[in-house]
Amino acid sequence: MSSENKKTNIILFSGDYDKAMAAYIIANGAAAYDHDVTIFHTFWGLNALRKDDKMLIENKSRLEKMFGRMMPRGAKRMGISKMNFGGFGQKMIKDVMKKHNAMPVEDLIEMAQEQDINLIACTMTMDLLGLRKEELLDDIEYGGVAAYIGEGEDGAINLFI
Amino acid sequence: MSSENKKTNIILFSGDYDKAMAAYIIANGAAAYDHDVTIFHTFWGLNALRKDDKMLIENKSRLEKMFGRMMPRGAKRMGISKMNFGGFGQKMIKDVMKKHNAMPVEDLIEMAQEQDINLIACTMTMDLLGLRKEELLDDIEYGGVAAYIGEGEDGAINLFI
Amino acid sequence: MSSENKKTNIILFSGDYDKAMAAYIIANGAAAYDHDVTIFHTFWGLNALRKDDKMLIENKSRLEKMFGRMMPRGAKRMGISKMNFGGFGQKMIKDVMKKHNAMPVEDLIEMAQEQDINLIACTMTMDLLGLRKEELLDDIEYGGVAAYIGEGEDGAINLFI
Repeated sequence: MSSENKKTNIILFSGDYDKAMAAYIIANGAAAYDHDVTIFHTFWGLNALRKDDKMLIENKSRLEKMFGRMMPRGAKRMGISKMNFGGFGQKMIKDVMKKHNAMPVEDLIEMAQEQDINLIACTMTMDLLGLRKEELLDDIEYGGVAAYIGEGEDGAINLFI
Repeated sequence: MSSENKKTNIILFSGDYDKAMAAYIIANGAAAYDHDVTIFHTFWGLNALRKDDKMLIENKSRLEKMFGRMMPRGAKRMGISKMNFGGFGQKMIKDVMKKHNAMPVEDLIEMAQEQDINLIACTMTMDLLGLRKEELLDDIEYGGVAAYIGEGEDGAINLFI
Repeated sequence: MSSENKKTNIILFSGDYDKAMAAYIIANGAAAYDHDVTIFHTFWGLNALRKDDKMLIENKSRLEKMFGRMMPRGAKRMGISKMNFGGFGQKMIKDVMKKHNAMPVEDLIEMAQEQDINLIACTMTMDLLGLRKEELLDDIEYGGVAAYIGEGEDGAINLFI
C-alpha cells in the first residue's frame, strides 16, 4: 500500500491548443515525479488524439462526416483559447515556442506515451461524433465514465481541463 | 468512518451546454458508483438550474431584468463552447444526440435529482445577477463558498467545470 | 501530522475576469477555513499578477513587446468569459458588483496576499510570453510544473480554472 505511486488524472475536455499543452505539461511533470498518470480525452479534447492524415472511413453518416471535417485532426491543428485573432495569436504562440525550444503539443503527446501515461479516449464521445479507432493514435485505451470514476476516486491530483 | 461513501464535488461555473453535459454525466456516473455527489452551480452555471418558463418577478432592478433576459433559462437554451457557428453546431450536437438516444442535459439533471445528487445554487451569484429562488428548480439547496469548502475538502474527486 | 492544515491548490490558467474572480473567492474562502492555499498562475492567468502601470522594459524582442501590449495589465483590464458583447457585459458585471459592494478582483488579490495565500507565477509562461519579474506584483513566488506537483499531490482541493 505505502509503496504505491500517487495518481494524477486529467480530464481533457477542451479542444484548445494552449489547454492541451497545459494538460500534457502537467501530465508529463507528474509522471516525472513517479505518479501514475491518466489523461481521459472527452468531447473536443478527443481531437488531440486524432491522426494527422485525412482518412476516408466507410459507413459514416452525413453528420459524422461533417463533424470529421470540421474538427481538427490532431493537436497541431487546434486553435488557442485566447487572442486567436483569426489564427494570428496562434502563429505568435507557435513562433515564440519555437524560439524558446518549447515542445509542441504533438511532441508532448509522444513523450507522454514514452512515459507510459495512460491515454484514454472517451467511447461515448467517439460514438456521438462518429470517430473511429482507426482515426485515433495507436496504443491508446478506450473507456467511458466508469473508467474515469475508477481512476479519479484514487487520484491525488484530479483536474478538468 | 470506513463505511462512509466517497465524495465527488463539482463546481459548475460554465454556462455552456456541452460542459454542463460533461458535469452531469460525471455526477450521475459517480452516484452510480455510490459516491455522495454535489454540484455547486455558480456564475453562468447557475443558468442550468433556471426554470423553463418566462417569469415576471417584481422588484427587480433594470440591470437584474436585463441579466434575466440575456441569460438562458435552463440547460436546454445554452449554447455550446466550440463550433457554435451561430447555433448550427449546437443543432448538429442535438441532432446527433437524438440519433444516439443520448440524454439531453435537462434529463440528466432530472436523473441527478432522482439519484439524490445535491444540487446547490450559489447565493452570491444569485444576489449579483438578481436571480430569485422561484426562478430556479424546486428541491435544490442554497449556499456560498463556505458550503463548497466544507464539501470540497473531503472530496475524492473535485472538479471545476 | 494531524495538526497540519488542509491544502487548497488552484491553477489559474484563464485570463477571464469572472474566472479569476471565482478562483480568488474560493482561495480566500479556503484560507478563512485555515487551508494552506496556493494559486499557481499560468498562461493567461499570469495577467492577473501584472502591475497596473505601463512599463518600458529593455531587451524585449518584437514578439515579446507585442504580447506585452496585447495582454491585459492586471485583473482590472480582463474581459469576461461570457456575454462580453464588446465590453458591455463586462461593464454590466462591474456595475452590478459595485451596487452589491462585491469586491473587485484587484481587491480579492490584495486580500489573498494579506491572508498569506501563496501566489506563484509560472516561470515557463513568463519565459514564453516575455514577462519579467518587475512587471508582476511584489511578494509573489516563482515556480514551474515541479512546484505545482509538489503542492498539488497533498491538496485536499485541487482545481484547474
